[in-house]
Amino acid sequence: MQNDKLGSWKRTHRCGELTAALIGQEVCVMGWVQKRRDHGGLIFIDLRDREGIVQLALDPDRDAASHKKAEQVRTEYVVAASGTVSARPEGTVNPRMKTGKIEIEVAELLILNRSETPPFMIDEYTEVAENIRLKYRYLDLRRPALQRNLMMRHLVAKTVRTYLDSQGFLEVETPVLTKSTPEGARDYLVPSRVNPGNFYALPQSPQLFKQLLMVSGFDRYFQIVKCFRDEDLRADRQPEFTQIDCEMSFVKSDDVIATMEGLIAAIFKEAIGLEVKLPMERLTYAEALRRFGVDNPDLRFDLELVDLTALVADSQFKVFAEVAAGGGLVKAINVKGGADFSRKDLDGFTDFVKIYGAKGLAWVKVTQEGWQSPIAKFFTGDELVSLNQALSAEDGDLLLFVADTAGVTNEALGRLRGHLGQRLGLASKDAYRFVWVTDFPLLEWDAEAKRYVAVHHPFTSPLEEDIPLLDSDPGKARAQAYDLVLNGSEVGGGSVRIHDQAVQSRLFELLGIGEQEAQLKFGFLLDALSYGAPPHGGIAFGLDRLMMILTAADSIRDVIAFPKTQKATCMLSDAPNAVDEKQLQELGIRLRKKQE
Amino acid sequence: MQNDKLGSWKRTHRCGELTAALIGQEVCVMGWVQKRRDHGGLIFIDLRDREGIVQLALDPDRDAASHKKAEQVRTEYVVAASGTVSARPEGTVNPRMKTGKIEIEVAELLILNRSETPPFMIDEYTEVAENIRLKYRYLDLRRPALQRNLMMRHLVAKTVRTYLDSQGFLEVETPVLTKSTPEGARDYLVPSRVNPGNFYALPQSPQLFKQLLMVSGFDRYFQIVKCFRDEDLRADRQPEFTQIDCEMSFVKSDDVIATMEGLIAAIFKEAIGLEVKLPMERLTYAEALRRFGVDNPDLRFDLELVDLTALVADSQFKVFAEVAAGGGLVKAINVKGGADFSRKDLDGFTDFVKIYGAKGLAWVKVTQEGWQSPIAKFFTGDELVSLNQALSAEDGDLLLFVADTAGVTNEALGRLRGHLGQRLGLASKDAYRFVWVTDFPLLEWDAEAKRYVAVHHPFTSPLEEDIPLLDSDPGKARAQAYDLVLNGSEVGGGSVRIHDQAVQSRLFELLGIGEQEAQLKFGFLLDALSYGAPPHGGIAFGLDRLMMILTAADSIRDVIAFPKTQKATCMLSDAPNAVDEKQLQELGIRLRKKQE
Repeated sequence: MQNDKLGSWKRTHRCGELTAALIGQEVCVMGWVQKRRDHGGLIFIDLRDREGIVQLALDPDRDAASHKKAEQVRTEYVVAASGTVSARPEGTVNPRMKTGKIEIEVAELLILNRSETPPFMIDEYTEVAENIRLKYRYLDLRRPALQRNLMMRHLVAKTVRTYLDSQGFLEVETPVLTKSTPEGARDYLVPSRVNPGNFYALPQSPQLFKQLLMVSGFDRYFQIVKCFRDEDLRADRQPEFTQIDCEMSFVKSDDVIATMEGLIAAIFKEAIGLEVKLPMERLTYAEALRRFGVDNPDLRFDLELVDLTALVADSQFKVFAEVAAGGGLVKAINVKGGADFSRKDLDGFTDFVKIYGAKGLAWVKVTQEGWQSPIAKFFTGDELVSLNQALSAEDGDLLLFVADTAGVTNEALGRLRGHLGQRLGLASKDAYRFVWVTDFPLLEWDAEAKRYVAVHHPFTSPLEEDIPLLDSDPGKARAQAYDLVLNGSEVGGGSVRIHDQAVQSRLFELLGIGEQEAQLKFGFLLDALSYGAPPHGGIAFGLDRLMMILTAADSIRDVIAFPKTQKATCMLSDAPNAVDEKQLQELGIRLRKKQE
Repeated sequence: MQNDKLGSWKRTHRCGELTAALIGQEVCVMGWVQKRRDHGGLIFIDLRDREGIVQLALDPDRDAASHKKAEQVRTEYVVAASGTVSARPEGTVNPRMKTGKIEIEVAELLILNRSETPPFMIDEYTEVAENIRLKYRYLDLRRPALQRNLMMRHLVAKTVRTYLDSQGFLEVETPVLTKSTPEGARDYLVPSRVNPGNFYALPQSPQLFKQLLMVSGFDRYFQIVKCFRDEDLRADRQPEFTQIDCEMSFVKSDDVIATMEGLIAAIFKEAIGLEVKLPMERLTYAEALRRFGVDNPDLRFDLELVDLTALVADSQFKVFAEVAAGGGLVKAINVKGGADFSRKDLDGFTDFVKIYGAKGLAWVKVTQEGWQSPIAKFFTGDELVSLNQALSAEDGDLLLFVADTAGVTNEALGRLRGHLGQRLGLASKDAYRFVWVTDFPLLEWDAEAKRYVAVHHPFTSPLEEDIPLLDSDPGKARAQAYDLVLNGSEVGGGSVRIHDQAVQSRLFELLGIGEQEAQLKFGFLLDALSYGAPPHGGIAFGLDRLMMILTAADSIRDVIAFPKTQKATCMLSDAPNAVDEKQLQELGIRLRKKQE
């Protein structure tokens, strides 16, 4: 059976754009058949395109040939219809449809293409195994939810570009075929044919190039850019991911933060109509850890950590007293009204904190009779009063304690806080709580390697006032680094960079990177710093994660057109795949045998 | 010597933005020192940023400390200056500078960073060896010409996005890690660590993905996207290049062409203020070859090819007569007033056409006494009259003839036409002559492989009316393919695709691609066509080449921030480079030894 040709047909509207305002008008629509119903001699077709669905009505008295053709039409056929927009007859109006008040009285129908019966229905609700969805991605992408997600992604990218352009940023493309950098995550490599034995690397970020653009005087740079990391994939990771990458000259942290708050506000306004209150909240890293235990706190709920170390230092409860004496931390959270958690729940919480290295979790149910808890007996009446007071404990509350090194106590209790916030429904799905976490430590002592490592990256500038600490007490130096955290997720992070060659050299020294090694790894950046680098700083936002939040998607694969599986394969194209021996020869490589 | 800190300083303007309208205003600028002059106890600094240069004036009576600091300042130092915009004193106005009427009376100066003496001056005019420029790319990029090029590139990308968005196109990202396709140019390969022995390929274009997006109902797609080809590099090629990639559903060639004319007009309007006259000219492939010998004719000048085959078929000049009898073509061009070319020039032209396979070039100088030419004697008086008439030959003209197979005659003479157009200055630098070349042949017979090959690619649709030719005379079938040619350069090309699975199968048959092979190579596209593919077509423009034309750059490297050399290396970062054995082990590959 031959398909009809488009011939001179021109579409006038998309299906979802037709409204009662167009009643009486001649229109031509083209799309996919969502379903066909035969009713009282008439044929009704729900026709779908990216804007929505409209009903076609075919009456044999109007055009017998088109009506006859419509009898062949099946789900997912591609058809074109011309006709008149009409009000639906009394009683057939569908208030749940955008176009539910009207239909098209079809004058002529074309079947532009036929379709096999698809492996799953194209609608909002079908639950389909993900491997089938990914194999037939071109059908999955017809589903309205995914179409909306990708349309919103387009809108977000457009908003980003419009805003940054208005702020004087230039979009400059940086290379995809670049140099393998030994620090950071694992690189994807690309063998060079022209220079056999040598490899390009795909960029983990355009970090060095954007800094060079500042040295070059471009002043403000941005790029929406693919980055690559060959890491084992978690649920929200992809081998290639997209960053909104920015860099600015002649700025300090506050300037970057203020500019980027405007960007985020523009995105949330355009995408979901949310007015973000500016300026956003800020927490120093130290305060975030003190109050929430983590550097990406979810501020949609309180449940703050309370430091009880001083209060329990002299108690008879050895576990707490020893931790306090050893320089550790004893902290607790008060789960208001949580006293009715079962023993099984409490065991679950204990297992949860153990994931983060805590040796245990002490719990207290606060009752009218006092503490109901295995540890109650270790405390004096005065101690109980002070602890209850510190925790604002009341009848019916559940108190959860961790005592360990500062790192373990904060992380274990901080994560448990997040877990409880989700479980107790404290974290409203409609709330968006932004917070900048600032003043990260510059360096972290790596006990194993017996040297400092950079918390952010080795080009991060210390706070101006902390530069002297690089000589006296480097571990205390704070960085001009900032993360933007939304509802407990880091959505972006950046820093002011070092523009002073002397400071950069001192930092490499602290990181145990010798002059020769620094020259080999970062030589061109060091050279660049010696030819008049301006003060500069920047940030990168993860676009995929941002889109997950904006679309409330459960999976990162729902905001990417052609995602990879957790095994880094493409179910659609079967990438990666085997290649010809000849191709490998040209590249000067060969496959290792199993035993190699 | 310590650099000054930004502290609480905020820039108010960029240097090039200051005008006489701001006289009397307090401003703060930051930038690079172009030069310093000491004059009558005052110090003048030309300060440069991406918008231009402004003059700073430092008077020891205003601020002695700043004046003292200014004495240290050298070329490319990074400084900040606050002060008052003032009219320059009588006689010191510089009319060649945008900011030439004013200067800043500096109240305070900061030295934000120092600079080594750069290896070359940062100005418009310095001629520097390209390898030095590429090694110090961050300095080269400070040159106003390159800054303007990249700023225009940003503007063009922005214009493309604004226009396509206004036409309902959605920007959708397609994968960079994808599947190696055996047709086309050589792929860059990326070994997979998770799936050892398998490789991703970097895309030569997102062709299949954009077609799948149409099958998915996205209706209109675009992307400004990096593409990759591992080919030996010519002057205007880079291993990674950028395309403006578009695809539309429910369209025929004319719809794509009309939409894209709007895009090109918007680009030229925004970038260089040119009003492109729409609709653009069109030539069929057949007419382009007939009149200009090539499918990318430069229409800035005439010098058209004239077909003389019929006129010389019966002549006594065997060379011409035999070509005519053998189905070849005899064509000539008339170089008006070209009779004074020297014998050496004519020998040069003969060598030129030999590059394209012509066995020789016959020449005639037209004089008042008739033809002055080695071949004059072979023609009768009547023949000479008809030939002169056909060529509108007049006293002083030069006639150049090629007689060969149709392919060789057209190409050799067509290229010679282009060469002469340049040499004679017929091609005005300020003229922009656009032409769409359409109706390309669908297939080309490969005599060696004894099968047809696709002229465009195997998904290109025949003209609707030529579909029956696929069975009767495939070589005659014309494609719904179109190239946009500007001043003799192809700037974009595309086609309407096959959306009908039966037509696609027939085409694979003609291309000698068996069912199994087709399934293996393009299986997912074939599957997609069977589930309701809409009629669709698209185009891709080469952004790098477009930018070369818009900026009148001589080299593609002048429109790319970080280009590669012709050996596909990056002089700045030294990519590609050797990697650790451990990395290769993880990827399951090893280097071949020399003898392997």
